[in-house]
Amino acid sequence: MQSSEQDKAPARSGAVVVSVDAMGGDQGPAAVVGGIALAAKRHPGVRFLVNGREADLAPLIRSAGLSACCEIRHAEDVVTMHDKPGQVMRTGKATSMWSTVDAVRDGAAQIAVSCGNTGALMAISMLRLRKAPGVNRPAIASLWPSRNPTGWNVMLDMGADVKADEDDLLTYALMGTSYARNALGLACPRVGLLNVGTEEHKGRSELKAAYDLIRANEEAGTFEFVGFVEGNDLPSARVDVIVTDGFTGNIALKTGEGTAKLAGELLKEALTASPLAKFGALLAMGPLKRLKERIDPRRANGGVFLGLNGMVVKSHGGADATGVAAALDLAVKLAESGFGARLMARVASAQHPVQDAVTESDSASEA
Amino acid sequence: MQSSEQDKAPARSGAVVVSVDAMGGDQGPAAVVGGIALAAKRHPGVRFLVNGREADLAPLIRSAGLSACCEIRHAEDVVTMHDKPGQVMRTGKATSMWSTVDAVRDGAAQIAVSCGNTGALMAISMLRLRKAPGVNRPAIASLWPSRNPTGWNVMLDMGADVKADEDDLLTYALMGTSYARNALGLACPRVGLLNVGTEEHKGRSELKAAYDLIRANEEAGTFEFVGFVEGNDLPSARVDVIVTDGFTGNIALKTGEGTAKLAGELLKEALTASPLAKFGALLAMGPLKRLKERIDPRRANGGVFLGLNGMVVKSHGGADATGVAAALDLAVKLAESGFGARLMARVASAQHPVQDAVTESDSASEA
Repeated sequence: MQSSEQDKAPARSGAVVVSVDAMGGDQGPAAVVGGIALAAKRHPGVRFLVNGREADLAPLIRSAGLSACCEIRHAEDVVTMHDKPGQVMRTGKATSMWSTVDAVRDGAAQIAVSCGNTGALMAISMLRLRKAPGVNRPAIASLWPSRNPTGWNVMLDMGADVKADEDDLLTYALMGTSYARNALGLACPRVGLLNVGTEEHKGRSELKAAYDLIRANEEAGTFEFVGFVEGNDLPSARVDVIVTDGFTGNIALKTGEGTAKLAGELLKEALTASPLAKFGALLAMGPLKRLKERIDPRRANGGVFLGLNGMVVKSHGGADATGVAAALDLAVKLAESGFGARLMARVASAQHPVQDAVTESDSASEA
Repeated sequence: MQSSEQDKAPARSGAVVVSVDAMGGDQGPAAVVGGIALAAKRHPGVRFLVNGREADLAPLIRSAGLSACCEIRHAEDVVTMHDKPGQVMRTGKATSMWSTVDAVRDGAAQIAVSCGNTGALMAISMLRLRKAPGVNRPAIASLWPSRNPTGWNVMLDMGADVKADEDDLLTYALMGTSYARNALGLACPRVGLLNVGTEEHKGRSELKAAYDLIRANEEAGTFEFVGFVEGNDLPSARVDVIVTDGFTGNIALKTGEGTAKLAGELLKEALTASPLAKFGALLAMGPLKRLKERIDPRRANGGVFLGLNGMVVKSHGGADATGVAAALDLAVKLAESGFGARLMARVASAQHPVQDAVTESDSASEA
């Protein structure tokens, strides 16, 4: 069920409209509406379709003074973090997540944002938006703090699928290139393939095949292929886009997050260990605060689903208003750049010279 | 060719003898002999077989005053970081690495330590020591900084093999349990299986099979199985032993290292950003120094090869004297605890109740 308000305010041609799932995050609708309030200030022309329970959302939007730029799309149900994707696909039509994605499908919004359950969001997005032509496995791309001038690297897949064959990895290279251009403004991104060594003879067989395939597409894809990279290259300045399967990408993402969190906690312990240390920390507060902001995971909030007929941004489930706003900023940026259409053109241009060599087992896995 | 000195000083029964590859590290023999000097002070009864070029080593050992506890095993050649494992297996007999491992094979030492090329060291160790009964794929176990009282978790495999099926993962659980008991002194370690989610329905199929197999061996193995863990659990206090395949383990290890390094560099930048910050850092110097020591990767130096008929410790290639000494400390601890024999008893006790269900493709992959 959708609110009748929707009809009153259709997406204006040219204006950016973001469809937001207000219900699925750990911190509830107040954090999402808080995030919209922050983003709305930074992007005055943008409109937000806010999906969820009207009775909960209306007072929040009113008291935040957002009535002019927000409209509610009522959805009675909520996808929880424990719901299984398959179940949600069958019975989730009345959820705010479904409504959020459908706004993109219907053309009411250019991009969808949700803090909800990743598996369910990908399942609904696949079902409602469908895979783009030439894409076998969609991917989730994230930004990773790096020593590059932009401060970020792009990494994909972060967990859309636990597997990827060489053709998928080539598609990830092309989609990651397109994302790096649009999100980071890089004309000719450097692409690396994640492996356990940088020598060509190392690693799993599908990685060797992917190496050749990506190399063969380097010129047409207008990226530079730097070959294999290792885990310690993820924050490095020698690569812009890191390509890997979703299992490995998800482990790496969470390992990096866990390590950064531990380092931050230990630093906090150290700087409160004695009165002298506390005073020292006070003196260094300015630079320490800037450091904290630089590596604040909320700033990089937003995994982008690539390879669908429509754009979806997955915000961290635990995001507060600042985190939600970062995901909305990213969504606005991607919508404004017309990223979705460009991405599809790039994937369609890929050459698969070794496709004949794809084994039967690869084809069978799609069945 | 071995030095004639070897015959003069056979390993005394009961005494710990460590065989050390003096040549393979990035920092050369001086760093290795420096490490021996540090370790020798901490372990007065221990003797070291120092493998490498006698002409290079003799003056270093003499000037460090180590002649009483060291003896040189001359080896003319050196395995470089670029040598391929297969090549080293065929033509590496005269290398210091080969000589180092052969000292364990011959019974002249209880444990071998090398800073050299990991792939070559594993290849030589497999060839000369052979896999232990019941082990299909040996593994490399590393210590990972954690919030546990010991300060560490055990993780394996860190890169001995890029693959692991469910039986291998069970073997890793058993070997990791044994290692955690002997290296960390834990009576009943908690074992977790690394995955992209903690729910039982998530992840790759071999992980679901491994989950059941490890669960079935929980009681006999005297460990507690906590189920699936995620990348952000690697430094957590809810698990002691983290089991994964060598591809994933290596990516996680290097991602963690890279993240910690970036965090450290950014912190250093912040604390030298202004005169005030520098003064603040000076006041907090004591706790900051202790923090640096706690997360110093050199302290955790030493990947242990598990599943061979003999113990081998791989030190970081770039280890300085402090790092080499940490690897030697670990080697002495493992040799003193009689870890090797206990490990084999544990693996031999494993039950494989679902072995009948192993598919043909698994068996074929061993061919």
